Amino acid sequence: MQREMSPKIKLQFYCGHEIAMGPGKADLLEAIEREGSISGAGRAMGMSYRRAWMLVDTMNRCWREPLVATRPGHSRQGGAGLTDLGRSVLADYRALLRRLSEGTQCPERDSLTRALREQPQEVSPAKR
Amino acid sequence: MQREMSPKIKLQFYCGHEIAMGPGKADLLEAIEREGSISGAGRAMGMSYRRAWMLVDTMNRCWREPLVATRPGHSRQGGAGLTDLGRSVLADYRALLRRLSEGTQCPERDSLTRALREQPQEVSPAKR
Repeated sequence: MQREMSPKIKLQFYCGHEIAMGPGKADLLEAIEREGSISGAGRAMGMSYRRAWMLVDTMNRCWREPLVATRPGHSRQGGAGLTDLGRSVLADYRALLRRLSEGTQCPERDSLTRALREQPQEVSPAKR
Repeated sequence: MQREMSPKIKLQFYCGHEIAMGPGKADLLEAIEREGSISGAGRAMGMSYRRAWMLVDTMNRCWREPLVATRPGHSRQGGAGLTDLGRSVLADYRALLRRLSEGTQCPERDSLTRALREQPQEVSPAKR
């Protein structure tokens, strides 16, 4: 049998009704680590500072400790980085998604992947 | 160590840019099987016929064969049921979610679950 392609999977963790972690928040954490600030991360991702700040605030309220810490002193405007928990949650989330998408011994995932088309069929004009 | 609670996880499979399967579509498939029609399933889920039909249409275009078949003859208005592939995709999706939420040997999931609060902290009034 051919090597299966990885399915395109979206995985979100909820805390109550709020999304505690998902693909957008994980990308934002990576950007904060790389850019060194919430505003820089937002710019790099093409989102407003307010939007980036709201996503960080949601994450910080959903996990037992904050995932993002703003640096004291503000030597750079809005300087921020990931906490130890932030790095660990990000790594676990990425690893879990990898395991889910590519890990061995997951017959349901393989069966779903085989049954999925690569692209959806077009909507027929008559059905629009 | 205490038995972990199951995390609240949302899992979606994409086909191109369309969502081929997720919690809402899985619930709709179950309702169609139970109610015997798309309109009945929509009513049972509190959604319009148009919305239910659109979700079915998306699923039918994303998988290699339709998941929902309308019955020939229309002895009941809009009678519909799941195809063999529909039953199999629904069962695999449910099983995969169960494995992901409760299965053994998933250290990343356990670590994330431990770090998640049960409910998000409230937004402090000063930050609103």
